[in-house]
Amino acid sequence: MWLMPPSVSAFLFARKVVSKMKINVNENYKRIKESYLFSEIANRVNAYVQANPGKEVIRLGIGDVTLPLAPVVVDAMMRAAGEMGKEETFRGYPPESGHEFLKSAVKAHYKADIKPSEIFISDGAKSDIGNIVDILGENNVVIPNPVYPIYVDSNLMNGNGITFISGNKENGFLPMPNQIKNNEPAVIYICSPNNPTGAVYNRAQLTEWVEHALNTGSLIIFDSAYEVFITDDDIPHSIYEIDGAKECAIEVNSFSKFAGFTGTRCGWTIVPEDLKSADGTSLNKMWLRRQSTKFNGVSYPVQRAAEAALSHEGINQCLKNIEYYRRNAKLIGDLLSKKRIYYTGGMNSPYIWMECPGNMSSWDFFDLLLNEAQIVGTPGEGFGLSGEGYFRITSFGTYENTLKACERLSKIL
Amino acid sequence: MWLMPPSVSAFLFARKVVSKMKINVNENYKRIKESYLFSEIANRVNAYVQANPGKEVIRLGIGDVTLPLAPVVVDAMMRAAGEMGKEETFRGYPPESGHEFLKSAVKAHYKADIKPSEIFISDGAKSDIGNIVDILGENNVVIPNPVYPIYVDSNLMNGNGITFISGNKENGFLPMPNQIKNNEPAVIYICSPNNPTGAVYNRAQLTEWVEHALNTGSLIIFDSAYEVFITDDDIPHSIYEIDGAKECAIEVNSFSKFAGFTGTRCGWTIVPEDLKSADGTSLNKMWLRRQSTKFNGVSYPVQRAAEAALSHEGINQCLKNIEYYRRNAKLIGDLLSKKRIYYTGGMNSPYIWMECPGNMSSWDFFDLLLNEAQIVGTPGEGFGLSGEGYFRITSFGTYENTLKACERLSKIL
Repeated sequence: MWLMPPSVSAFLFARKVVSKMKINVNENYKRIKESYLFSEIANRVNAYVQANPGKEVIRLGIGDVTLPLAPVVVDAMMRAAGEMGKEETFRGYPPESGHEFLKSAVKAHYKADIKPSEIFISDGAKSDIGNIVDILGENNVVIPNPVYPIYVDSNLMNGNGITFISGNKENGFLPMPNQIKNNEPAVIYICSPNNPTGAVYNRAQLTEWVEHALNTGSLIIFDSAYEVFITDDDIPHSIYEIDGAKECAIEVNSFSKFAGFTGTRCGWTIVPEDLKSADGTSLNKMWLRRQSTKFNGVSYPVQRAAEAALSHEGINQCLKNIEYYRRNAKLIGDLLSKKRIYYTGGMNSPYIWMECPGNMSSWDFFDLLLNEAQIVGTPGEGFGLSGEGYFRITSFGTYENTLKACERLSKIL
Repeated sequence: MWLMPPSVSAFLFARKVVSKMKINVNENYKRIKESYLFSEIANRVNAYVQANPGKEVIRLGIGDVTLPLAPVVVDAMMRAAGEMGKEETFRGYPPESGHEFLKSAVKAHYKADIKPSEIFISDGAKSDIGNIVDILGENNVVIPNPVYPIYVDSNLMNGNGITFISGNKENGFLPMPNQIKNNEPAVIYICSPNNPTGAVYNRAQLTEWVEHALNTGSLIIFDSAYEVFITDDDIPHSIYEIDGAKECAIEVNSFSKFAGFTGTRCGWTIVPEDLKSADGTSLNKMWLRRQSTKFNGVSYPVQRAAEAALSHEGINQCLKNIEYYRRNAKLIGDLLSKKRIYYTGGMNSPYIWMECPGNMSSWDFFDLLLNEAQIVGTPGEGFGLSGEGYFRITSFGTYENTLKACERLSKIL
């Protein structure tokens, strides 16, 4: 044995059996485009910074919050972590759909009557939106454009065809049911307040969507992750404020924006018990089965933190952060109004979606802003073809930087 | 308007458009049996307790840990929660595949050379095992029986056919490749140390599996969630201790048993870059795309807690808990050996999988234990047909209760 050291022996024996793996993969993944949006932005910004070392670049491209968690939330998480360290208060596997204490807090958040069994706590809205296709079969799928890419990619991964309905200047980036050319049942994605456009459906418009869904036997997947930014009384925070929605809509929400949980991870999904498929199957039971099989619940300290965010004191503290972002959004919106530049959002939303001046393309405007004002935003074209010629600016920067950015913008717009 | 109160008006208008939803659902869900195992156990135990209010029932059925988190883990989680409350140290969206600090700690855990890009941090092994079918296409699927139900259910949900290979007394509940009747490429699930049987593959046996996979072009999905219980030097903790495994195996691991994270939620999956499908697609890139699309990373305080568990001090503290469970397992195993009852596990595993005495069925033995010894275990039949006539007892109770259970068992076996 000493003639053949172990590494050589291992090599020889390993090689003799090597052959290529012959496993088949999900072919639908080949339909998904690689997303170069944020890497391309990073590349251009890095190149600029290297070539212009003295210049101060202001980043208003990110969709991530920047203010810290509310004190009451941090306290709750610390306390729960402490409980996990003591035998008397230690907690093992959580219920897959969430601890009852957090379900109660979420239930109280709704004006509509939502049952605890209709509430599914999760590690975030992105997971739920991505995974919901698991329980659905072959259907028409209707998705607005421009759009949060997860709606599209999760459906492509599942082999589904997609019909896009366009948001544009004519409809204020709020596509309506009359843009759907038939009365076939469909799975319809709606995000309001919208990412990336900041546009928000009012009560009458959402009522139109619910009536369309009920009349055609469609299912609405309603993404309300940005609802905390709503200030207008006429704008519903939840699809369930519309009569009949519990018979046609799933709603996905998140603590990410409301409580700054992007790095803490918690969200929830409402699947009403009234939702039945064409053959009478309960979507609520299917989602419960999906989550019980492929998910094991949310971390106990995170659930306690989320519960604290929904407490009276928690809401007050969290809303202070939201006010801070709102002030930033207003600064940018007011400037664009003054300059008579068309935009959506800014009100009821952390996003400002502006038309690029002078018919510039999204990327040309990106380069202009970077080179002339050292401001980084997100080219609208990255959110779909209907986003070309538009540009997204976010309110998640500091107030000081947003003020400075507005001064610079004011000179070049 | 006063003639028609709002509730009545809402009712009328809602009704006029109501129609049944006509959406199609995933038909494969109909292939999954409802699992009545744990609810049936609860029903029988509750009935017994109601009828026998004075009797003390000892529960050795659960697969959940009971000892608290290690102090160093709690400290790390509290510290990280505190960081989230300060602007300078706040963290937003984590990288979908995990923070680098935790990937480094996981990398150091392996004897084999694993790259950070091959490590995917997740909210637990159950999620990864359930979701991995997302990236796979139509394949032969080979699953041992008895079995952790998630392997079966996730494949049924995806419409896959399954070939079961039986664990039994003859093979020591360690099915081997010679039980597969052809040399077709297949997706093969292996769990070692096994849940529910506690049986463990040694190095020679795992080498046989890896060679089979390489020779047939198969993919092994290796579940090593219980590896911390291994004490024998001859038993690999990871499939990657076998030459060639990086060309044919995905490994899923968890902090749940090692660090008691069942309620804290963290795990990881290794998808080697060498894994290529029949058409040359990189499984690593597909999994990255899957996770980037349908997952948003693990909570920052949880990742810091997991990092602390893998520190030198963390490992020492966590292993104290494991020693506690090992002592329980040994108590039960020693009793069964003395009584000459056939069992697997007990060594290198928190589970004891025993043959029911006198050819009793799993459920008859369940009733006998409950009625005569006030002990609750899990009927093996609940883990698949090959589990009939067997019974699972776990070491996750307290030492005192386990001792008491052994005394009672001793009298009736």
